[in-house]
Amino acid sequence: MKIPEVILIEVEHAPGNLAKVLAAVGEAGLTVEGLEAVRRTQDRTTWELTFNVDEDDTINVGARIDALPIASVLGRSDRVFQMHEGGKIEMVSTVAFDTPAGLRDLYTPGVARVCLAIRDDRTLARRYTNIQNTVAIVTNGTAILGLGDIGPVAGMPVMEGKAALFHAFAGISGVPILIESKDPRVIIETTAAIAPSFGAIQLEDIASPECFEIERELIERLPIPVLHDDQHGTAVVTLGAILSASRITGVDLSTSVVGQIGLGAAGIGITRLLSKYGVKRVLGADLDEDSLARLEANGGERSTLPDLMRTCDIVVATTGVKGLIKPEMIREGQMILALSNPEPEIEPHDALTHGAAFAADGKNINNVLGFPGLFRGVLDAGATGFTDAMLFAAAESLANQAPPGQLIPSPLDRQVHDRVAQAVERAAS
Amino acid sequence: MKIPEVILIEVEHAPGNLAKVLAAVGEAGLTVEGLEAVRRTQDRTTWELTFNVDEDDTINVGARIDALPIASVLGRSDRVFQMHEGGKIEMVSTVAFDTPAGLRDLYTPGVARVCLAIRDDRTLARRYTNIQNTVAIVTNGTAILGLGDIGPVAGMPVMEGKAALFHAFAGISGVPILIESKDPRVIIETTAAIAPSFGAIQLEDIASPECFEIERELIERLPIPVLHDDQHGTAVVTLGAILSASRITGVDLSTSVVGQIGLGAAGIGITRLLSKYGVKRVLGADLDEDSLARLEANGGERSTLPDLMRTCDIVVATTGVKGLIKPEMIREGQMILALSNPEPEIEPHDALTHGAAFAADGKNINNVLGFPGLFRGVLDAGATGFTDAMLFAAAESLANQAPPGQLIPSPLDRQVHDRVAQAVERAAS
Repeated sequence: MKIPEVILIEVEHAPGNLAKVLAAVGEAGLTVEGLEAVRRTQDRTTWELTFNVDEDDTINVGARIDALPIASVLGRSDRVFQMHEGGKIEMVSTVAFDTPAGLRDLYTPGVARVCLAIRDDRTLARRYTNIQNTVAIVTNGTAILGLGDIGPVAGMPVMEGKAALFHAFAGISGVPILIESKDPRVIIETTAAIAPSFGAIQLEDIASPECFEIERELIERLPIPVLHDDQHGTAVVTLGAILSASRITGVDLSTSVVGQIGLGAAGIGITRLLSKYGVKRVLGADLDEDSLARLEANGGERSTLPDLMRTCDIVVATTGVKGLIKPEMIREGQMILALSNPEPEIEPHDALTHGAAFAADGKNINNVLGFPGLFRGVLDAGATGFTDAMLFAAAESLANQAPPGQLIPSPLDRQVHDRVAQAVERAAS
Repeated sequence: MKIPEVILIEVEHAPGNLAKVLAAVGEAGLTVEGLEAVRRTQDRTTWELTFNVDEDDTINVGARIDALPIASVLGRSDRVFQMHEGGKIEMVSTVAFDTPAGLRDLYTPGVARVCLAIRDDRTLARRYTNIQNTVAIVTNGTAILGLGDIGPVAGMPVMEGKAALFHAFAGISGVPILIESKDPRVIIETTAAIAPSFGAIQLEDIASPECFEIERELIERLPIPVLHDDQHGTAVVTLGAILSASRITGVDLSTSVVGQIGLGAAGIGITRLLSKYGVKRVLGADLDEDSLARLEANGGERSTLPDLMRTCDIVVATTGVKGLIKPEMIREGQMILALSNPEPEIEPHDALTHGAAFAADGKNINNVLGFPGLFRGVLDAGATGFTDAMLFAAAESLANQAPPGQLIPSPLDRQVHDRVAQAVERAAS
């Protein structure tokens, strides 16, 4: 997996110098992802340069830049680490109690009256506690981002990120729950045991195939919504993008054949949702036999990469394999969504020049567009679980909110999440 | 158990009228706990009157007040319920991300770099996540306050209260974990499974005797501090009060015989801590044989109520039984701490008039004085568990901070908790 590297470069302040530095970056085979001036003296500027590198790469771009007489590398920027310093979330009190009377109302003895009211009518917990507004973010760290099995503690920055996004975009209290076990039974029993603390459960970055059993059993056993975000959150955002792309290209989904390349958690979630949504046929390709069987159990048909590319009107890829789709595989008029990040299965430009009617990569297809509104909606509805109608409503809301020429809206607009939540809540009734 | 009732009374605004209302309250056998004018018109005042009643009492005080020509009861106040409306805690984001670049640093792809750093050096989790500042507040709801086994969800207002106090007094993120099971194995296995999420575990309102097994095994198994607050938090605050009282009365603890009446979680915690602290002898009385055996295992000697009252220099009672200690049982020069709330085993005034050298009830002996500083200190020290030295240091800090004439300081003073935390942290090194 490619991960972002941020370095600080000092460049003499003269016409053409920055271009020379960027040329050196290009010669190293790297694409500039970000460039920002962070300090300027009389004759020099310090730039923060962001690019993506392989995790194990030695960085030879530094040597190339240092070889230029007009620039030097000052070192790595700790911009990203600074943002994560001390963690990104905090549990705070929402009540004030700066008098003895306030403390007695908040805590003992006053709190006893509230406890007894809930003992006598458990539905009052929804009104007098934060349970209904709290979502557990449960992981065992076996499939963190594209990094794989790095363990739940190393995955905590992602879980805290989810919690921060829950708060910022949906006013939800997200509580990371790290479980150091690969045994599905442990994940299931532990999550079930602590479930009364929460209004809903988000399963996160748990490896396939264990994620399927865990989600299925928790949905059956618990009286609250359970959602494996890597499957269904991703599927909702992908369906939203496909709906947008279909409008742009005039494609009718109900008569279209869709192909999914890569049948991990995301791929299975996408094929399942597209099947239920009513596309004509869903084909899937994967090297793993179990994954193909799971595809069939979810309404899809097994295929191979070449066959799928020949057959399908719409192709979605979530393999993590850069360049897997060769330009010559593209069929005239196809819609291509090569979603692997940061490097897609085929560059959209290459797909378009080889006949694709539409092509996009996964840069903006981020599941942060899905889960805040999905959970806000299901919690506000007081529903006991997610339904496909809710997932469809969320995807359609995203498609409807896409600005002209875009597949989906920006996740930084809080209103986007509000509207997704409202759509989900309406779909619940 | 007595719980607070708050009613609204409208009284004609004339000299002597309020006295008549309070006389009616006194005739009903109730003590006024609070009185506040909440609204005033030209000729009437609305008062919010707080008193304690038995949970199942029908309130005849209302009828008595309504019978007065100058007053009428408007109804119950929902002041307490208003404070708990919507819950009392919230998980918030502590970072800002209102640009695409900010979102990429906070979440994917930037977060991957932080995850990999922690994968390679797990100690970095302390720096780049909130784990080390987060405490699980674990309960199964079997011993909520004095209310008994009302279940974890009905107990949630207490757990949220603890979390609110953690935040306000110690800057700690408290996360309530509700486990709907009375099986110690389930509590142990569940808590152990989710422990990587937290910097420490606070066991809370779990019934005796299960609480002892649960705490012992979790301390053995987990690499982080585990504390059953009902035992040790209460013991710390009680030891602090005894240290203060000893200074006031000139008593030397090392030559004193201490008696503990009531050997539930709090009683066992108190006898254990006093034994370790070095009092000459610790006697205990309880009707339960297992509790007496547990006392002996913790360094105490079994006794009976009359014998204990005859023998001991210092008597602590945590039975929840109002009036258990008869005035004639008091020995000349004894120190009496009758801690049951809201109604003590003997009123301090009665103990003093029957020869006690010192007497106090539990009105101000609140474990909110203990747990925020205890956990702040142990987390700041990076210690793997609580030691008796830490508990002693916290108790001594409380005694040292007591204003003249008081046993312990006010919990509303944030500095009190800071100093307890510093004392605990010093004791760890």
